[in-house]
This record gives sequence, C-alpha cells and structure tokens, in this order.
Amino acid sequence: METNFSVDPKLAERLLFEIESDQMGGWYDLPNTYNVDEIKHIKELARKIQSTSKFLVCIGVGGSYLGHRAVIEALSPKSPTKILYAGNSLSTRELNKVIDEIGDDDFSILVISKSGTTIEPALAFDAFKQKLQKKYGEKDSCSRIFVTTDANHGALHDEAIANHYGSLTIPNDIGGRYSVLSTVGLLPLAVANVNIDKLLEGAKFCRDKMLNTGDLGNSMLVRYAFDRYRLYKKDGCDVEVLASFEPSMLYFNEWWKQLFGESEGKNYQGIFPASVVYTTDLHSMGQYMQQGRRNIFETIIEFADNSGANLAAEKATVYAHRLGGIEVLEIKVPSLDELSLGFLFQFFETACALSAKLMGINPFDQPGVEVYKQKMRELL
Amino acid sequence: METNFSVDPKLAERLLFEIESDQMGGWYDLPNTYNVDEIKHIKELARKIQSTSKFLVCIGVGGSYLGHRAVIEALSPKSPTKILYAGNSLSTRELNKVIDEIGDDDFSILVISKSGTTIEPALAFDAFKQKLQKKYGEKDSCSRIFVTTDANHGALHDEAIANHYGSLTIPNDIGGRYSVLSTVGLLPLAVANVNIDKLLEGAKFCRDKMLNTGDLGNSMLVRYAFDRYRLYKKDGCDVEVLASFEPSMLYFNEWWKQLFGESEGKNYQGIFPASVVYTTDLHSMGQYMQQGRRNIFETIIEFADNSGANLAAEKATVYAHRLGGIEVLEIKVPSLDELSLGFLFQFFETACALSAKLMGINPFDQPGVEVYKQKMRELL
Repeated sequence: METNFSVDPKLAERLLFEIESDQMGGWYDLPNTYNVDEIKHIKELARKIQSTSKFLVCIGVGGSYLGHRAVIEALSPKSPTKILYAGNSLSTRELNKVIDEIGDDDFSILVISKSGTTIEPALAFDAFKQKLQKKYGEKDSCSRIFVTTDANHGALHDEAIANHYGSLTIPNDIGGRYSVLSTVGLLPLAVANVNIDKLLEGAKFCRDKMLNTGDLGNSMLVRYAFDRYRLYKKDGCDVEVLASFEPSMLYFNEWWKQLFGESEGKNYQGIFPASVVYTTDLHSMGQYMQQGRRNIFETIIEFADNSGANLAAEKATVYAHRLGGIEVLEIKVPSLDELSLGFLFQFFETACALSAKLMGINPFDQPGVEVYKQKMRELL
Repeated sequence: METNFSVDPKLAERLLFEIESDQMGGWYDLPNTYNVDEIKHIKELARKIQSTSKFLVCIGVGGSYLGHRAVIEALSPKSPTKILYAGNSLSTRELNKVIDEIGDDDFSILVISKSGTTIEPALAFDAFKQKLQKKYGEKDSCSRIFVTTDANHGALHDEAIANHYGSLTIPNDIGGRYSVLSTVGLLPLAVANVNIDKLLEGAKFCRDKMLNTGDLGNSMLVRYAFDRYRLYKKDGCDVEVLASFEPSMLYFNEWWKQLFGESEGKNYQGIFPASVVYTTDLHSMGQYMQQGRRNIFETIIEFADNSGANLAAEKATVYAHRLGGIEVLEIKVPSLDELSLGFLFQFFETACALSAKLMGINPFDQPGVEVYKQKMRELL
C-alpha cells in the first residue's frame, strides 16, 4: 500500500476516516461522545458496591479483563472495596485463591461478558453465584450481582433482566480489546476509586491533539504507526518489545499485547508483541536486547516525572540499545496517573488500528480464535 | 555444527561433557554433589528468620531474584514469614509499596548479590538497613541482616564479615541464571516453607534419568534441545513461546526468559524467548498464535494432574495451533509441586546450555550487559 515508508498525512487521514467509519469504530471518538447520564449511573453503581462490599469479584477474560486490571495494578488506588479477578482461566488453584481471600467478608460480583457464554467467565459466574446464594439467600444475592453485557441479546442479558441485576450495556460498535474506556472498564475502575473523569480526559486529549487533521505529519501517534509499518515491512523486524521503567505497568503491557496481537496477527502476518519492565528485565532480557537477533525493535513509554535514577537508566538503555543496532521508539507522557493512562489507551488503540490498516489487515476481527473454541466444545 | 538436525546422541554426549567440565558448569551436577551441612545451615537460618520476622525482604535482581520468586508464586506456600521483594528495579513507587506493607511489623532482610555493587540491590540495601537501624538500633539490626554473596571477595562479603551478618556463599562455578537451586534460591525458599529437599530431589531425578548416557537419543531433554536447534536453523523460527495452563507460573516464565535470553542472545543470534499463561492468554495472544506470522514455535508445560477442563483446553490448544501451522513441543510433569519445579529447573538449565552449544554460543557469559552498565555509571 505504501512504498517509501515515510509518514504520509493524506494516507493517514484516509485510513483514520475508514477506522472512524467502521462499524466497530465506536471507540475512536468515544472521548467526545460520552453519555453523561451513563457516567453518573456508573458512579452510582460504584458507590452502592463500595457501601456493601469489601470485595468485588470481577469476572471476565481478554478484553473484558485486561484493561481495567492494567489501570488498577498501575495506580494501586485506595478503595473500601478491593477488586479481585476470576473467570480469566480454568485453574481451580486460582479460583480457590480468590475464595480464600474473601473468607467470610461481604462481597459482590460483576460479570463482564458480551455473550455470557465464554467458558471461563461462565464457570466462574456459576461458582460465585452459588457462593452468594449460600451466604445471602437467593433473593438478596440478586442485589450483589452486576453485569456488563450486550444491550439486547444473550443468556447473560436475559438473566440480568429476569433477576433485576444492576446492569450496564456494552456498545455494539466497540470490540473487547478496544473497550477499556467504555462501561466494560469504567465500572470496576470507579469501584476501585480510580478517577474515571481524568481517564476520559486523557483519552480526549489524545483524540483531539494527536489527530488534528491539520498536523497529522507531526503527530507522535501517526509517526508511531508509520514507524512500526516501516520496521516490519522494510527492516524485517517481526518482534516489538514494549518497555517502561515502572514494574506496576506489567498488566498494561498485557493489555497492549492483546490489542496488537489480536488486531494484527492474522493472514500469517503481524508483528509479534512482547514486553518487558525495566530496570528489572535489563538483568534478564537485557543481554538479548543488546546482542541477540536484530529482528526486534523497542517501544519505550517514558513517565517524565520518574525519579532521577530511573530516568538516567532509561537514557542509558536507549543509548546502549541503539548502539547495539536496534531501533528505539519513545512515547513520553507526564506522569503515571489517570490522565496519562487514558491518553495511552486512546493512543495505542488508534495507532494499532492505523498500523493494521497500513498492513492491509482488518484491525477489528479475530477469526483465528474460533478454531480453539470449536475443538474445546468437542472435547468437553 | 549439525546438518541433518536429527537427534545425535554422540554429539549430545560430547556437548554435555563440555558443559559439565566448564568452569561455570557447577550447577550441572549440583543435585548429586550437595553439601549436606550447608542444607542444614540454610534450614537453621530459615527457622531463625521465621521465629523473629513477619516479613523477609529479599533484595536481589535477575538471577538473584527470579528463581526463588518463581517457586513462591507458583506454589503460594504458607509460612509465618512472608517474602517481599526489593532491589529489582529503580522504582520508588515499588520501594514504597514494600515499606507500606511492612508497617510497624518485625522484619529482616536478605541481600543476594555476588559483588554487592549492582545498583538496584545496593540502593535497596541502603534503604532497608537504615530502616532496620532506626527500628532496632545499630547493633541489634545486624542480627536481622542476612547476605548470600561471594565466598572471598567484594564489598558485601567484607561488610558481612565485619558485622557478623548471617551469611551464605554463592558457588564460584554457578552463574546467576543457573543458581536457583544453590544457596541463592534455597534460603528464601526455606523461609517461605517450600520443601527444598523435594525441590532438589526433582532436580536429581532430571539429572539422573534425562542424562543417562545409554539412552540420550530418547531423552525428552536432549530431544527438546535438538528440536529448538532445528526449528531455529532449519525452519526459520526465531521466537519461542513458553506456555502453561496455570496463571501462577507467570514468574517461572520470567525465570525461563532470563535463562534462555541471556544464554543464547549474543553474536546477533538466539531465539527470542516469550511466554503466555493459558487459558487467559488464549483470549489475548490466541489470535496471533493461530494465524500470525509463522516464525514462532510453542513449548507447553503440562501438569498431568490438572483439572479435566484445563487438560481439555490444553488438548484443544495443541490441536488448534498445530492446525494453524506452528510446531508445539510438550513437556509433561506430574503436578505443580516442588518435585516437578525442581525437575523443570534442571531440565531447562541443561537443555538451554545444550541448545546454545549446538548454536555455537557460549551459554555462560553475558558480554552485552556491560554497555548499559557503563553508560549508567557515566550518567549518575
């Protein structure tokens, strides 16, 4: 689609228009099209949960899980209600850890699932619903079950209506891996006392400043997307390593890997997404980054207000890795807080969709996930 | 070095002999050459720490950190003393989390560092020593400081002697990433009430059964090393993804990435080590594994006593990914416990050294780490 690999503002504008117009492009302008009443409703539900529950078990997997966990792990906010996670694996060991932590304390559950039929959250929902009913009785337990699901269809939707669960709807035009700033992420984040207004403000800042059509050629976002495309197509780099100098960004990295891996990894194409946390991983993956195969490039998120030693370590790392022959892309944000995380979510979602479009890949489907699910249904 | 890429028992035997004879090959026969008195001493130190401390802050990075954390995260053992980790990054945010968790409770510290001069643990040691001295006084704090360091040299060694810290020595013929079953890993694990005898028994089982010179052609370990070599050299796979179906294996994966990345990633060579935890990551990296670029292969650790649903998920995954055109290697162990983890440590250390030898790479040095350290010293 592109031959000289330099940033082409006209091409970027056309592809961004395609993304915004896509039937799954609802996240693109979300920071400007918010339903104010829905945000109010989310905050009311959050206060209700906080007033009744020491724990909220968030049941979901993939895009219904990684985004809100990324923010909570990154910021460690203080809240009367601690968020626990379930339904993201089939491990009974993990399930029992959550049950042990709850003990005899008060808790509620939040099931986040478009269809309600994905096996991991469905099994966990069963387990925790039984636990609620045993503790609070069948009727009262209904006031401790919350769901975020499809607006009109599905098993979970029907059950929520029938039992008057507190519920939120997942917009039809937003896919799982692009949904962190929708109802999917905002309710657990509000319960955890994350400032969701600031998160949305950060996303809006990215939407408005990075995609100013008068200046797309200088946009850090557009440049990042074109750089990735050039590195992949021209320089033969098939692994991207996302790095930051804050260990609490571990789950943000996981969110990022789903976003890019699931958006680009199809038609036997796509950059393999990997991640590190420095300086920890300079003492493990540092040797490979310095002198391993040169089919990798590195993307570093810098928090400008990091400590002097940490910023010096970042400078030394960028210097050393460039000397070692790998290209390092840098994305700078002011601080590890809600504003910057909101910015980064919107930034990477948009850049990912743009990158995929440049490669000629549909950023919004996931046809490969079906093979495993089909075989799993056969075996169970 | 090898041309038809099939398992060559004679070549394996020769390379294993080179590994065992290497001046850094001390880990190879460690399960059979243990100093029984040292194990006793480790257990005594552990009991002393348990009787005086609600927390033990383990200060170390890279090979002085990842191995013991891998076991503790995997098994969640119950102990009167909880292990906390510091000195593995330069993040003040992380340091403060540890300080907050300790609060006013009794604690001790264990510094694990060959030289004592690595910047991350050195800074953390300073911080926690001051905290100890403030709480217990200069003299009494000495009985709460433990070190695992070089037998004869270094700043940490000298300080330990001068102040009568409880101390253990790191064997000279074992490098950081091969040291988990030495004093480096065993003291924190004993404090955490991990059964270190079983851990060593598992390693011994691997050492004795997998490297039986009469049957190297059928050894799962030798086959794994040759398979990796073939996939890399013949099939153009430059990314290996380690997978298991237990989320608590997350830090084992981190240990494994250091082992392989730092051993192989030099001379612009080496397979890029990546990892996933399933089924969680089937909902994030699953799409890429199924239909992304085919320059990857997958290595799955199976725990045979996993739940039925989890084993079915594993079967479905192996089936789907092979159908998608990637090679899946399987390593089966009985159970997620000390025996199997000890086995896996010895298994991967030996297979890694053998793989690197097949590629013509020295598995025991890390020349690339110096560039970053040099620049860091300049900047600070």
